[in-house]
Amino acid sequence: MDKNRIAQQVRFIFEIDKLKNVIRQSRISDNSREENDAEHSWHLAVMALILREYANDKDLDIFKVIKMLLIHDIVEIYAGDVHVYDIEGNKDKSIRERKAAEKIFSLLPSDQAEEYQSLWLEFDSRITNESKYANSIDRLQPIMLNCTTEGHTWKKFEIKSPQVYEKNGHIKDGSEEIWSLVQKLLASCVQKGYLSEE
Amino acid sequence: MDKNRIAQQVRFIFEIDKLKNVIRQSRISDNSREENDAEHSWHLAVMALILREYANDKDLDIFKVIKMLLIHDIVEIYAGDVHVYDIEGNKDKSIRERKAAEKIFSLLPSDQAEEYQSLWLEFDSRITNESKYANSIDRLQPIMLNCTTEGHTWKKFEIKSPQVYEKNGHIKDGSEEIWSLVQKLLASCVQKGYLSEE
Repeated sequence: MDKNRIAQQVRFIFEIDKLKNVIRQSRISDNSREENDAEHSWHLAVMALILREYANDKDLDIFKVIKMLLIHDIVEIYAGDVHVYDIEGNKDKSIRERKAAEKIFSLLPSDQAEEYQSLWLEFDSRITNESKYANSIDRLQPIMLNCTTEGHTWKKFEIKSPQVYEKNGHIKDGSEEIWSLVQKLLASCVQKGYLSEE
Repeated sequence: MDKNRIAQQVRFIFEIDKLKNVIRQSRISDNSREENDAEHSWHLAVMALILREYANDKDLDIFKVIKMLLIHDIVEIYAGDVHVYDIEGNKDKSIRERKAAEKIFSLLPSDQAEEYQSLWLEFDSRITNESKYANSIDRLQPIMLNCTTEGHTWKKFEIKSPQVYEKNGHIKDGSEEIWSLVQKLLASCVQKGYLSEE
């Protein structure tokens, strides 16, 4: 056992524990509190397993999708969580997150640092089928949480239905069927008064 | 798209959100609060990826390990979390958890219910190499958290060093190298006064 190697890995494992303190805008289903990035990442990974049959690409590498989802938010330990509808916060988000990715993954031994940084970049770029499907799941989940919390974040930030459609349209790049599910969920939320049309 | 099938999957996804409210005894690294099962499961999945080179079986199916770790605590939504050193609570734990597994996984379409229940049973039985390695990671993580929280749960339940060695010895069935790491961590915790020898 390479002592230095395992020491780097252990340090990374301790460092990423901080993801449990990165708080998102979404509330958990029972509306009792805001969700954190660690539990969000867990939820996405399970969702991606359960819904994989709906990915546009039936032959995608689902294990790669799961790895991406497990680490996709780790950069927020240094860069913070920015709400999808926050125009100001999203301006330099990409630069901040790329720097953060370099910082956190470089705690790992160089072969693993390279592997996980490249996986994170792949997720962020939304070019491959794996990253498109992973991003669909990442957008579906907060919509589902809005449905069970009476539109908590939509109401808080005065988000209207056209913005939700615009910001989430890329779900269909990963899964036409999940996009169809999302449209049904949104219609039902509008009907219940959780989401305003204008 | 089979409407009934996706409805079952969506219901399961909403139901497992409750894992975020199942509170464990371990505290997160900064000692600010107790960890929940969802973020614990996320942490284990990432750890299993990073430490896979130390598994005794170099050819194990790591994707299967990750799937196991993602769902291994889901039964606690109905059965509750029982601390590893709680003798009374552990008496009927197995029966309660097997019933809970049947209840929660049966929310899924039958093919997926069967797949995930069988994966959970495999984890619980600790017979296959995948489940042995997954269980090693599940035991390593709370020890690491005890190290950064000055032995929070050991002190709370007056757990002494021999009990920790006894309850965690099966780590070596999944990874001799992780067991060796754990022994070093425990020795350091004893030295710092986080864990009493007797």
